[in-house]
Amino acid sequence: MRTSKYLLSTLKETPLNAEAISHKLMLRAGMIYNISSGIYSWLPTGLRVLRKIENIIRKEMEKIGAIELFLPVVQPVDLWRKSGRLELYGSELFRFVDRNNRNFILGPTHEEVISNLIRDLVISYKQLPLNLFQIQTKFRDEVRPRYGVMRSREFIMKDAYSFHIDHESLQKTYNIMYDTYKKIFSRIGLKFYVVKADTGSIGGSISHEFQVIVKNGENSIVFSTESDFVEKIEFTEAVLPSLSYKKPAKKMSIIDTINIKTINDLVKQFNFPIDKIVKTLIVHANENSSNHLIALLIRGDHKLNKIKAEKHPLVTSPLQFATKKEIKDIINADPGFLGPVNISIPIIADRSVIVMNDFISGSNIKGKHYIGINWLRDLPLPEEYDLRDVVDGDMSPDGKGILKIKRGIEIGHIFQLGTKYSEIINVSVQDKKGRNQIITMGCYGIGITRIIAAAIEQNHDDRGIIWSDVIAPFQVAILPIDIYRSYRVRKVAEDLYIKLNRSGIDVILDDRNERVGVMFSDMELIGVPYLIIIGEHNLNKNKVEYRERCSNDKKLIEVDNIIFFLKEKLAHCFV
Amino acid sequence: MRTSKYLLSTLKETPLNAEAISHKLMLRAGMIYNISSGIYSWLPTGLRVLRKIENIIRKEMEKIGAIELFLPVVQPVDLWRKSGRLELYGSELFRFVDRNNRNFILGPTHEEVISNLIRDLVISYKQLPLNLFQIQTKFRDEVRPRYGVMRSREFIMKDAYSFHIDHESLQKTYNIMYDTYKKIFSRIGLKFYVVKADTGSIGGSISHEFQVIVKNGENSIVFSTESDFVEKIEFTEAVLPSLSYKKPAKKMSIIDTINIKTINDLVKQFNFPIDKIVKTLIVHANENSSNHLIALLIRGDHKLNKIKAEKHPLVTSPLQFATKKEIKDIINADPGFLGPVNISIPIIADRSVIVMNDFISGSNIKGKHYIGINWLRDLPLPEEYDLRDVVDGDMSPDGKGILKIKRGIEIGHIFQLGTKYSEIINVSVQDKKGRNQIITMGCYGIGITRIIAAAIEQNHDDRGIIWSDVIAPFQVAILPIDIYRSYRVRKVAEDLYIKLNRSGIDVILDDRNERVGVMFSDMELIGVPYLIIIGEHNLNKNKVEYRERCSNDKKLIEVDNIIFFLKEKLAHCFV
Repeated sequence: MRTSKYLLSTLKETPLNAEAISHKLMLRAGMIYNISSGIYSWLPTGLRVLRKIENIIRKEMEKIGAIELFLPVVQPVDLWRKSGRLELYGSELFRFVDRNNRNFILGPTHEEVISNLIRDLVISYKQLPLNLFQIQTKFRDEVRPRYGVMRSREFIMKDAYSFHIDHESLQKTYNIMYDTYKKIFSRIGLKFYVVKADTGSIGGSISHEFQVIVKNGENSIVFSTESDFVEKIEFTEAVLPSLSYKKPAKKMSIIDTINIKTINDLVKQFNFPIDKIVKTLIVHANENSSNHLIALLIRGDHKLNKIKAEKHPLVTSPLQFATKKEIKDIINADPGFLGPVNISIPIIADRSVIVMNDFISGSNIKGKHYIGINWLRDLPLPEEYDLRDVVDGDMSPDGKGILKIKRGIEIGHIFQLGTKYSEIINVSVQDKKGRNQIITMGCYGIGITRIIAAAIEQNHDDRGIIWSDVIAPFQVAILPIDIYRSYRVRKVAEDLYIKLNRSGIDVILDDRNERVGVMFSDMELIGVPYLIIIGEHNLNKNKVEYRERCSNDKKLIEVDNIIFFLKEKLAHCFV
Repeated sequence: MRTSKYLLSTLKETPLNAEAISHKLMLRAGMIYNISSGIYSWLPTGLRVLRKIENIIRKEMEKIGAIELFLPVVQPVDLWRKSGRLELYGSELFRFVDRNNRNFILGPTHEEVISNLIRDLVISYKQLPLNLFQIQTKFRDEVRPRYGVMRSREFIMKDAYSFHIDHESLQKTYNIMYDTYKKIFSRIGLKFYVVKADTGSIGGSISHEFQVIVKNGENSIVFSTESDFVEKIEFTEAVLPSLSYKKPAKKMSIIDTINIKTINDLVKQFNFPIDKIVKTLIVHANENSSNHLIALLIRGDHKLNKIKAEKHPLVTSPLQFATKKEIKDIINADPGFLGPVNISIPIIADRSVIVMNDFISGSNIKGKHYIGINWLRDLPLPEEYDLRDVVDGDMSPDGKGILKIKRGIEIGHIFQLGTKYSEIINVSVQDKKGRNQIITMGCYGIGITRIIAAAIEQNHDDRGIIWSDVIAPFQVAILPIDIYRSYRVRKVAEDLYIKLNRSGIDVILDDRNERVGVMFSDMELIGVPYLIIIGEHNLNKNKVEYRERCSNDKKLIEVDNIIFFLKEKLAHCFV
């Protein structure tokens, strides 16, 4: 490519309205162009990176025998109503009607569509297992589109769906996909972590996420300082250092707290330590309980972990908080001053609450709090349960080191769906004995556009993006100084350009006749890994200057050696 | 690929609801799967063909320096309101609102989006000319989706947009695109015609269409029997054999025709020859006329050509027919019995009407027709104009041979847009002297999914599809007889499979253990160009059977010669 015939469109200024560094750099490097909230055009430089990632994924998928197809963007609402996901996705679905008033959605995922197709096209166990994938534009009407392509409303995914006669076959493919995902992300050059995950709106049982640690990540990923423990915060057990109850030191008394609205108010106005305060949350009980409501207790500085709470045998799932009216009507308490003393419903207390002494909480009476509360003395010891998110400094559940929480972004997610969709849509095949057998399914996603943002978050400096060789938009940039004044410079540059192109190396020749500083800052901004600077001065010694983007190394290389040198550098891309 | 691990999904029965042969064969060959009216999944076999066509197009576009980008599917309605195309496209646009009640459309084309982008990213004449393209899914809410992917609501297009400092530069790129389109369609193996076209809802001045002749085509393409004359019927001049007026033979009289509603009724009930009847159509005049309405006369067996009528200096464009009420109120005539005699508005008669004698038409009085009408004698000779579509047997406008009309389908369309969009969206650059200069644009489309249907319409037989080597889903099929009973058959088949794969040939090995008849009919249906049948009988002679799909040739080939033989056959695919 020649810059003179290319749409480079780099920006000097950092664009407003971009928070994440990857978003800023993608805009500045001319990779994307915003048209509406969360909707982007992929400019040539961005698309080059996108296509390289797509091709790595495609090749790895084909290696394991997955077969590519292409499902429609537009999906009939009926399919989603049938699977029960119309409500589940709710306003995240872009919905519309056609000229005949038929209802459609823009696909955020394709479980329904592909299950339907397989039901009609696959009839015998002999056709299984099947692993089908597509690379396609998906749509999701995000509440808060942000961080550029990290959370956008129109994005590109690789989604795969596997079909099996039984769970054993699914497990086999699941394991292969698990390994293939690791291979793909490694090839792309990402540092990532695999964590157990919630199956959420996709459904099924077992599921794993592939997470990349980035500054603006939306997930909390928990690490241990002294082992390779890694988990999503949703699943990490909060382990207590010891379960010894501290002795009461204070008497329980009631105080006036009429203007208190939050725990922070309590801390500020009364100077109470936040870890001496107990938060009381009232949630719905499920049909296993004889009560309608249940009280959950969490220490003031802790956060309720919904997934843990939902696992309690008496709590509804998904978790449902009691309304103010329910609290008043059913337990006759003031919703702003809740507490475990004299409450008429079952209490489940977080492990760290059980070991508290002389603690503070609401009194269930408007404008009053209890202080100096102690278990056993002032009220019975409640049921103990792990209810909270872990925090920095908690002990690691594997007993090694303490926990450190980082922000992560999901770039891949694999699911064992089981028969969730195949039962609803009646996807069955004839087994060996001619009997109908419901198919077992898996599904596997990679957020392709998001990978690009993640890669930039992980690899950049103050001059711009640092790409790995395999996904860089161009692998080599040729920067000739005074190309239109020096015949010799032009000749060497053009020769090199032609030869590198012939070698299958992605090369960009900057023939804009710009100052070397401008060429430099553009090529460093868009993250070209290897730069060759050609000038009269070095050509006198029959040399050109070589610079490496990631290491900042520079050296002079003989003109005749450049091709060989670069081919060696890039050899790993041609495996 | 091995059939045992592939989603072949061929159908024996011809599906209902499919009219066009290409639609039937695509369903039967397991290329597409219908999910809703005009919306299809691309199954693996279909996608393989699609991707091959995409790659041919991509390579040819890159050869001429066009740069790929990827614009969003979702476009803000505001852009379309601004360009005036919101109304023009009307209910062909899929429209929807997001969760914040902002209005969007699903893009059927991207002139607005790309003009907007270029306005912001291109600032200097030095960055021009630019030729940008994308390959993308497009959406159009067709009134009548039909013939499978020939007229679907979700389809794939290559659209390119070029940007220029002046018309000369546009003309240069336009000519290059014109030639490149011819090259692309030739490489794909299509027989096509280039015709001058209407610019329609895209706009601009000059435009050409690339048409393929197919049975269910939606356009009428006019050919001459004795020259290479080819035109869309909209533009073809209707030439008269002679302009000599025939003498009156009958007297004009009025007859009772109370139950007559159509020209056909007139022909049936009175046995009048249809070419003796004159149709009278009342349309709106434009501001150049002192009258509000104008009467157009066409021979009973002819069809009004709207584009020709719109070119008349006194007729509104787009053509607008008078309502029944307007006809009654303004010219005091009965809308069911219109005719040129005693009409109070200007008359424009088609050339073939001017030479009629003793003709029949309405009397403007309910239930009455005139017969035996003659020009000059019964009413003045009206203005003569070319108003009709040509018909089979008309003289060719180039004076050579007679005309023959065939049905065509548009697979490509190129436009000189000029400044239509750049003026509205204010897309300008600084010219050499630092002055602002509005950009000149071109745009260029190829209907990729439609090409597949067109290729099948042109090349098939009663056994299925006949692909050209370059777009066939597989180039070679290996059909081993009794693969699991004969070690020798299996060994030769597997060897051949591995070697062909290594040679870069797209090969499918049918390892399903099916009867040879089943394998044959599947591979012939999906149109694999070259079949190799491996059986014990021929292996005794160290030979395999070779069959050619397009010619039906068959012969025995030495096992050791197959690879060389097939490489020779397919050499043209690797240019």
